[in-house]
Amino acid sequence: MAYFENVKNIQFEGANSTNPLAFKYYNPQEVINGKTMEELLRFSVTYWHTFNADGSDPFGVGTAIRPWNHLTGLDLAKARVEAAFELFEKLNVPFFAFHDVDIAPEGSTLAESNRNQDIIVSMIKEYMKTSKTKLLWNTANMFSNPRYTHGAATSPNADVFAYSAAKVKKGLEVAKELGAENYVFWGGREGYETLLNTDMKLEQDNLARFFHMAVDYAKEIGLNVPFLIEPKPKEPTKHQYDFDVATGLAFLQKYDLTDYFKFNLEANHATLAGHTFEHELRVARINGMLGSIDANQGDPLLGWDTDEFPTDLYATTLAMYEILLNGGLGKGGTNFDAKVRRGSFDPEDLFHGHIAGMDAFAIGLKVANKLLEDRVFENFIDNRYSSYTKGIGLEIVEGRTNFRELEEYALGLTEIKNTSGRTEVLRATLNQYLLETLSNVAVR
Amino acid sequence: MAYFENVKNIQFEGANSTNPLAFKYYNPQEVINGKTMEELLRFSVTYWHTFNADGSDPFGVGTAIRPWNHLTGLDLAKARVEAAFELFEKLNVPFFAFHDVDIAPEGSTLAESNRNQDIIVSMIKEYMKTSKTKLLWNTANMFSNPRYTHGAATSPNADVFAYSAAKVKKGLEVAKELGAENYVFWGGREGYETLLNTDMKLEQDNLARFFHMAVDYAKEIGLNVPFLIEPKPKEPTKHQYDFDVATGLAFLQKYDLTDYFKFNLEANHATLAGHTFEHELRVARINGMLGSIDANQGDPLLGWDTDEFPTDLYATTLAMYEILLNGGLGKGGTNFDAKVRRGSFDPEDLFHGHIAGMDAFAIGLKVANKLLEDRVFENFIDNRYSSYTKGIGLEIVEGRTNFRELEEYALGLTEIKNTSGRTEVLRATLNQYLLETLSNVAVR
Amino acid sequence: MAYFENVKNIQFEGANSTNPLAFKYYNPQEVINGKTMEELLRFSVTYWHTFNADGSDPFGVGTAIRPWNHLTGLDLAKARVEAAFELFEKLNVPFFAFHDVDIAPEGSTLAESNRNQDIIVSMIKEYMKTSKTKLLWNTANMFSNPRYTHGAATSPNADVFAYSAAKVKKGLEVAKELGAENYVFWGGREGYETLLNTDMKLEQDNLARFFHMAVDYAKEIGLNVPFLIEPKPKEPTKHQYDFDVATGLAFLQKYDLTDYFKFNLEANHATLAGHTFEHELRVARINGMLGSIDANQGDPLLGWDTDEFPTDLYATTLAMYEILLNGGLGKGGTNFDAKVRRGSFDPEDLFHGHIAGMDAFAIGLKVANKLLEDRVFENFIDNRYSSYTKGIGLEIVEGRTNFRELEEYALGLTEIKNTSGRTEVLRATLNQYLLETLSNVAVR
Amino acid sequence: MAYFENVKNIQFEGANSTNPLAFKYYNPQEVINGKTMEELLRFSVTYWHTFNADGSDPFGVGTAIRPWNHLTGLDLAKARVEAAFELFEKLNVPFFAFHDVDIAPEGSTLAESNRNQDIIVSMIKEYMKTSKTKLLWNTANMFSNPRYTHGAATSPNADVFAYSAAKVKKGLEVAKELGAENYVFWGGREGYETLLNTDMKLEQDNLARFFHMAVDYAKEIGLNVPFLIEPKPKEPTKHQYDFDVATGLAFLQKYDLTDYFKFNLEANHATLAGHTFEHELRVARINGMLGSIDANQGDPLLGWDTDEFPTDLYATTLAMYEILLNGGLGKGGTNFDAKVRRGSFDPEDLFHGHIAGMDAFAIGLKVANKLLEDRVFENFIDNRYSSYTKGIGLEIVEGRTNFRELEEYALGLTEIKNTSGRTEVLRATLNQYLLETLSNVAVR
Repeated sequence: MAYFENVKNIQFEGANSTNPLAFKYYNPQEVINGKTMEELLRFSVTYWHTFNADGSDPFGVGTAIRPWNHLTGLDLAKARVEAAFELFEKLNVPFFAFHDVDIAPEGSTLAESNRNQDIIVSMIKEYMKTSKTKLLWNTANMFSNPRYTHGAATSPNADVFAYSAAKVKKGLEVAKELGAENYVFWGGREGYETLLNTDMKLEQDNLARFFHMAVDYAKEIGLNVPFLIEPKPKEPTKHQYDFDVATGLAFLQKYDLTDYFKFNLEANHATLAGHTFEHELRVARINGMLGSIDANQGDPLLGWDTDEFPTDLYATTLAMYEILLNGGLGKGGTNFDAKVRRGSFDPEDLFHGHIAGMDAFAIGLKVANKLLEDRVFENFIDNRYSSYTKGIGLEIVEGRTNFRELEEYALGLTEIKNTSGRTEVLRATLNQYLLETLSNVAVR
Repeated sequence: MAYFENVKNIQFEGANSTNPLAFKYYNPQEVINGKTMEELLRFSVTYWHTFNADGSDPFGVGTAIRPWNHLTGLDLAKARVEAAFELFEKLNVPFFAFHDVDIAPEGSTLAESNRNQDIIVSMIKEYMKTSKTKLLWNTANMFSNPRYTHGAATSPNADVFAYSAAKVKKGLEVAKELGAENYVFWGGREGYETLLNTDMKLEQDNLARFFHMAVDYAKEIGLNVPFLIEPKPKEPTKHQYDFDVATGLAFLQKYDLTDYFKFNLEANHATLAGHTFEHELRVARINGMLGSIDANQGDPLLGWDTDEFPTDLYATTLAMYEILLNGGLGKGGTNFDAKVRRGSFDPEDLFHGHIAGMDAFAIGLKVANKLLEDRVFENFIDNRYSSYTKGIGLEIVEGRTNFRELEEYALGLTEIKNTSGRTEVLRATLNQYLLETLSNVAVR
Repeated sequence: MAYFENVKNIQFEGANSTNPLAFKYYNPQEVINGKTMEELLRFSVTYWHTFNADGSDPFGVGTAIRPWNHLTGLDLAKARVEAAFELFEKLNVPFFAFHDVDIAPEGSTLAESNRNQDIIVSMIKEYMKTSKTKLLWNTANMFSNPRYTHGAATSPNADVFAYSAAKVKKGLEVAKELGAENYVFWGGREGYETLLNTDMKLEQDNLARFFHMAVDYAKEIGLNVPFLIEPKPKEPTKHQYDFDVATGLAFLQKYDLTDYFKFNLEANHATLAGHTFEHELRVARINGMLGSIDANQGDPLLGWDTDEFPTDLYATTLAMYEILLNGGLGKGGTNFDAKVRRGSFDPEDLFHGHIAGMDAFAIGLKVANKLLEDRVFENFIDNRYSSYTKGIGLEIVEGRTNFRELEEYALGLTEIKNTSGRTEVLRATLNQYLLETLSNVAVR
Repeated sequence: MAYFENVKNIQFEGANSTNPLAFKYYNPQEVINGKTMEELLRFSVTYWHTFNADGSDPFGVGTAIRPWNHLTGLDLAKARVEAAFELFEKLNVPFFAFHDVDIAPEGSTLAESNRNQDIIVSMIKEYMKTSKTKLLWNTANMFSNPRYTHGAATSPNADVFAYSAAKVKKGLEVAKELGAENYVFWGGREGYETLLNTDMKLEQDNLARFFHMAVDYAKEIGLNVPFLIEPKPKEPTKHQYDFDVATGLAFLQKYDLTDYFKFNLEANHATLAGHTFEHELRVARINGMLGSIDANQGDPLLGWDTDEFPTDLYATTLAMYEILLNGGLGKGGTNFDAKVRRGSFDPEDLFHGHIAGMDAFAIGLKVANKLLEDRVFENFIDNRYSSYTKGIGLEIVEGRTNFRELEEYALGLTEIKNTSGRTEVLRATLNQYLLETLSNVAVR
């Protein structure tokens, strides 16, 4: 293990540790409600941000100092695998995730690309035999190569559709080979640059055709894992068809795909769509479509996907709150679709970023769990909506009334009395739980 | 007719007129493709912004100088009806639209409110006998009164649900009485302030129950008009359930309501949701759900609904382009959900605003029509997607292939050749059509 | 004391209290670095949001249940004074702030308005004799009345300029009479709706003339308090001249007003301008212009001034960090320019909102103080910029070099070695301080 | 001339041309008010977007098909020069602009970089002898190389400051050598990623020191051209110190630099800062600081710098309106800081983009000129502010009054009468001028 020699295995040292290379809150074996934090959080390292990203941005080339920077081609790919499993072990994470092009270089032909991928997949499979770290999901990168300029499954060019099909076919095979727990679709170029040159209906019909073929092929090869759509409203595309959960849901319903797909939700994509992360989680949850999460955070004052490591404890708490209400993430996980800042270019910063994010989610888990244990918001909500558990409210909910009866009832009302929504109290209570849950003092 | 005595009937005077109180481009009787501009545009005046709004904003009281400012109660309501039909005639508009509380004052009880409404509805009906102006749609205001603080059909309070049902019941009856061409639902408070106190699932289930009851009651009374949902993402509510067309579509599909509802789309609501107006029109159109439009514009640098009279000719052209591709608006119309600026407080400004908007849409209609006549974008698009009309592309579209065959095909590809999207040329062409269509010179 | 009879004096009960009507963190007499929390935080209640606001928004009328709702005119004004001092005492706040029109009704003439104001000012002065609560600042509302539609000191109408001058003259006199610690200018209508009708240069010149006259008059009457400009980028105006601190600074420098003015900074105004609150505080601080703060928070996903009670602990911590580095707020204070949500309509919610905000700032104070005590960021920064304390860096800072010498130096450099910015570590450390500072365990 | 063999010299063919490779509106020799369009518009091609950009974005590699794609190093640099002057001639543009690294590859040392630059500068100088195209401005790229990760003149590393000084020294020498008309500073990394690690005051002080040294060196070598700061609020940096014109102005005033600097204003940077382009132009103009423009446009629904070729005729008209009021751009120009979309990858698209932008500005020039000729807005504004030309208004403007007198005057006012701002009429008039100016019919 030579790639991160300055970094030892990251240990849980507790809240008072001043060691930047230690967990202060994430204690994988700590049991919460009968499950370990590791089982509840199911952390996953993303290959692309951690092993491929170099800190470049539209205005500057890469800054990242990486022990594999001198290598190219398959040598580079192999070094990354070695470094990856070293990092997985040192961080003690149970999962990882990748795009096809992250792990192996694209060849000059599809066949060569597949051969390259096969080589690295074999190597990864070998590493997985002795590693605890499993594949949360893989996916096909159908946005970086120029052939996808105008889209992949929604390309105006049928050849690109075909090529994309071949890529996802391979991806499903790799998923089976490596025992992936899910398979993800992020359609970064599935959208449009301008409506002036776009046949939106044909493009969306084609996307649905593509998904149905993927479903069929997965059945054919016996790959029985959730398919996850990852919504994003824009960037790189002016408009992306999977704008948000609701948009994705409309699409899946229209094209009869809801049985096979759930959502992989990313915090920063939510905010770019004008939603909080917890909103997207809620919408997916109440529709039975919450599959997995891409844990990161955006900058509310910046209009692009900054993919920062998540440290906002409000966001992690409210995310874990939805996830616990969902009964957990099932086969999904908490995948750090996050990159260290361009100015955090040391190899150690990769660990700092993950530690920051893992601790933030561990805190969120504990606070959310305590909030639910104490039924803080649940009791408030039960009381707030109690009018639907009796009388006219119950008739409404049970479908036993109509406009005529309701009008009669309304005409008889002498006063309508609402109750305060108490936003300010609820927020103050959230602060109190945030600050006190982790101290060893009972809050209530 | 004494309310706008300084304003005569607004005439079409042509593009060189310097009379601010004349149409320069909107010539209602001009025939385009066999229909008059009046028939194609179906302009509608909104009651609330034109006769009720006073120029107040969150930081200041009303500024509007209106001939009816000295009146109150039913006297005020009646004066507004008189003024309304005077303005309708002087603008020569075929339609108008209102919320229940716009036309008649709320009473201290539901019964009194209904009585007030009946009085004014009768008066309006009488005026309509001799007026060409018909009712495009009416709707129930279920957001201004404090009882709707936490929502109407999505209120945590069953009494509010019942009261709202009574309001819409009345609204449907008024629609029938006045021969409305549509009935609209805008759920300004149907959403949430904070997820901490919100049962989103119950609220959305209740909203669906409410809509089904409305459908049933309309059938019962023989009101056979399109129901229109008007999406808006936020404001006044932090999050509104009818965020955009796609979100509305997911809701209607989930709750089996697509047969009864279409969308009433507003330009400013689109931009608040992160979309262009034409995007929302396109999404509704290709799903067969484009019902009517609320014509206005927002300020792209301001984050609230400014409801400005539409003057951006790009937006009006691209809107009319979608509408013409839709085969027109059917029973829908071009309703000016627009208000004069707070600083445009003269009665005459009401005419200036409408003239600006009507001329802008008339220009948009002509340019869009010419673009379609010349198949400017259609030919480009046909060519761009031509690979789906033959060979592997046709097999894809016709569902006669699968991932195995597509992989085989892709493996055989030696090169994938895309064609330029030509965004810059298309935009320049749009400018050329904008500038040249109205001159009497053939563009192509 | 009869207005808030359900509310007793708010006591500090500590972090484990479950009493919503108690402070959990704000302990006014607790000493931090030799000063009490009360002295350090200098909390102030705003009259307008607390006693005048009714929960109305652009889509709905007031919802607030207030014990004075049945009153009008001067009776209402007097009741509000009584209620105000009851609330001040129960919250135990040292300061309050008001616009002229908040405390007394406008008359039909300026003279009558002034008389009304005199009556209430006398009453307030009487109350202040026995109250601990002092006037942090007053200001003139020059945005609500229709006369200010097009601006006050920047109005195109010289009569409005004159009227505004009279208002501020009176305001300065009231400031002197009541012993205000500052005088504030918020120019909500000092800007433009459209450049098409605006002489920006004349308007800004006039604004400077107005400020100079105010400075002169304050000198004349012996009012020696800081004048504070409150920047806001927009709303209600499309563009407001005091966009942010930097814009205000450019204005004050250009017109030679920096000696008399500082800034009153509001969190929500900062975010509307595209800045964090701490950014605006920093810019003001390093220019010696940080006068006072308007404590609230916005919603990063909403585009208008939501003026929520501040509960985001990151924001309060980083605000207090800047304030402590500033050596405190001097004569300024922490003024709650915040309103309870429309759905929080009970009188008690006024207390809940303030408690939430006061606790959030108390936490922020403690965490910021601990961060500074431990020099967490200071040590990092000292080290990061250490190259400017010696060699070529020192020559740069001391102005002893030039481009020729620097080129020579640069040509001799064989390598330039930057150090990681460590954003992720610093954010994780901030979380650690947030969670641990208030527990009774030493963090470091 | 072999690089763009499919493209002939672009000719003016008039509004009815259907040749995409022709100007429809830009007729360089057409005289407007005694000057040619060429003289008035002073178009400039940017080297980076036109010859260096490859269509890559954060999610995909380059797509651009360019005749020089097979070359590297100095060979590539020389080919680009050849292609550049071919394009300049074919477009018939009078100016171009570049960063140092655009024209010549960086070497492994500063000395080598300078030598590379010298080689290409000589070549360019040779080409300029027989070309009409002159250098509008050059600038130093101090943001792409990793050494600038934390800033250039504001770097925490004094070595970076020194290296940056050497770069700008060289840039000033090149400016002199090539007869540049201006020298530009865009500080893409002069700002911060997080305040937690930033000494803002030292950084800004250093930036000022840097600028003063640049001023001194320019004097020393006899380079007497305007220095232009190009404001941008963010991207790539979280916050950039030159946020907008007002912020830049505050900085220049504070550090006594206003005599040497003006602004180079970019449309897309304006909108990212929350301003319209015309706002930024206005602010610079009325402060005598309007130097040059970067002509492009952003997408109001996207939060990053899209740098699209400008086609919005409202923006070009209102920009030219400010520029004409400024008496033209002086030594500045209309520089297309714009790139073809990633999907517009053909070499011809470079011409399409420029033609679209040049025609759009030509239209804007003509419409703005006509608006000014007819004094459409000027007359409205003169009348609107006429109260300041007499009586109390004149006393205000001439500084002959004070708060006491103004109060006396205000007390005597029986009524204050404002006039309507007429936003709607003015916008409709703008549309009328836009549509009619270019037809050969007199508008008024």
